[in-house]
Amino acid sequence: MKRMVSVIGGHRAGPENLREAEALGRGLAERGFVLACGGLGGVMEAACRGAREAGGTTVGILPGTDAGEANRWVEIALPTGIGLARNAVVARAGEAVIAVDGSHGTLSEIALALNFGLPVIGIGTWEIEGVIPAADAARALEILDGLDSRRREERSVGG
Amino acid sequence: MKRMVSVIGGHRAGPENLREAEALGRGLAERGFVLACGGLGGVMEAACRGAREAGGTTVGILPGTDAGEANRWVEIALPTGIGLARNAVVARAGEAVIAVDGSHGTLSEIALALNFGLPVIGIGTWEIEGVIPAADAARALEILDGLDSRRREERSVGG
Amino acid sequence: MKRMVSVIGGHRAGPENLREAEALGRGLAERGFVLACGGLGGVMEAACRGAREAGGTTVGILPGTDAGEANRWVEIALPTGIGLARNAVVARAGEAVIAVDGSHGTLSEIALALNFGLPVIGIGTWEIEGVIPAADAARALEILDGLDSRRREERSVGG
Amino acid sequence: MKRMVSVIGGHRAGPENLREAEALGRGLAERGFVLACGGLGGVMEAACRGAREAGGTTVGILPGTDAGEANRWVEIALPTGIGLARNAVVARAGEAVIAVDGSHGTLSEIALALNFGLPVIGIGTWEIEGVIPAADAARALEILDGLDSRRREERSVGG
Repeated sequence: MKRMVSVIGGHRAGPENLREAEALGRGLAERGFVLACGGLGGVMEAACRGAREAGGTTVGILPGTDAGEANRWVEIALPTGIGLARNAVVARAGEAVIAVDGSHGTLSEIALALNFGLPVIGIGTWEIEGVIPAADAARALEILDGLDSRRREERSVGG
Repeated sequence: MKRMVSVIGGHRAGPENLREAEALGRGLAERGFVLACGGLGGVMEAACRGAREAGGTTVGILPGTDAGEANRWVEIALPTGIGLARNAVVARAGEAVIAVDGSHGTLSEIALALNFGLPVIGIGTWEIEGVIPAADAARALEILDGLDSRRREERSVGG
Repeated sequence: MKRMVSVIGGHRAGPENLREAEALGRGLAERGFVLACGGLGGVMEAACRGAREAGGTTVGILPGTDAGEANRWVEIALPTGIGLARNAVVARAGEAVIAVDGSHGTLSEIALALNFGLPVIGIGTWEIEGVIPAADAARALEILDGLDSRRREERSVGG
Repeated sequence: MKRMVSVIGGHRAGPENLREAEALGRGLAERGFVLACGGLGGVMEAACRGAREAGGTTVGILPGTDAGEANRWVEIALPTGIGLARNAVVARAGEAVIAVDGSHGTLSEIALALNFGLPVIGIGTWEIEGVIPAADAARALEILDGLDSRRREERSVGG
């Protein structure tokens, strides 16, 4: 099974956040992660673009029933048809969640991911207790790498 | 059709918040609102109890498939079976949402309700842009009454 | 907690099926059951009408986010916003499911209810292994009463 | 975007149906389709195995929140956490649905796919009006190819 990380964020993001989202997608692809997201525009599109340009796989978990709503960098589109309830599916999809910018939809995904007990890293997004802040994509990827090695250690110690 | 308001909040709340939740349930029932909630314990249970004791109707939108998980003051239990995705259904159920206390699950419902464009009133809960703060249940009910008369005015002017 | 039965069926039903749906709603209300359904027209509307005219409570579990889509006999409207996935919620809502007529949507609800292990009674609907056929509403209600007394016996013997 | 087909079917299937499911997965992969399924055992596992052995991509849309429930041939696991409501997501995922064997869960997915207006091909499964029957995987793939060329013709004629 391929490892997956969810990227969430605003569908109306400024140029700087889009740049970070793209760098994030690229970094995830280089690490071999599948990128899951909500499949629409803004941060989701920029992250997918970064991932695809680095040869990665992207999954778009769409709110509607029309796969055609996916941004052009989504490789595997899932038109769930469950509306905003799909935010819970996006939040649960990856082994970690990285948020960039974002409005109330993103906030709901952050909260759902924390509720699921997943690590959430945030770049320029809602400052919620439990979110690990990162200055930019490079730092978020370092934190992700750290989570990973910590988990490996726990496994080698714990059993 | 009966009018409905969603009450959301922590399933581990302190005595003061439980008292406010109960007063809230009572006030909603007295105004003729059906009370929708997530159907479990803590704030949800206290609000249901207040509503039922004042002769109101309570709906519990449960995450699991077992109606027996509902608190004892839920009159109509809906065992949705959709897990945390049911937070989106709770958030959308009422014409307004009132939050009391609460952790990440409550935060996700606040964010989803704001995303749906619904008014959200908060008592001792997450301070999120868009949430109308209220000191206690009495004040929250006043704000709710105000929303309502404002809507009536808009209707009599606009249409 | 009030006991609930789900009524499912076609939103384009002929006059005979609508008459049976209405009789069914009436009979459920007389027995004290809350009637849950998909909230739209046809069989759902006729059953709600029968229930309401007999003083019963009706719950409409809608696919969209607009409570205004509910038929006029729905007392408690739940605009789930989860599209056809709401069929699983309708199928799970009651302690039994009664189907009248219906097309593929109804078939999906029958199949989901059987998958949940619930008793399904069918009036002029899909002949699926596991569905208990009934000639009309009166017979369906008799079967429902029988399920109930059987369950009571099991309880008095078993527990 | 990659094209996708959903394969549905029993998690307790006999050896012949498992053989057909595996051949089906292989054939879909050879045609470049991503295979979407419910991610569990039986037909789902056999189809995933066939697809992966032919170099294809497999997506498992799981009912629970634990990616570890996926069969070992699932490459991209989506732990939706929405229970049986995920059947609606499986049914909608592909541009066509192929059913092999199966019980009530499969029947619900067939019905939901027909409700979404998608072509459904059936191998040794429920005989429901609207399902295109196929004797085996080879025939199902021929029918799928035919749907495809028909769609191309419609496009070249219609606009």
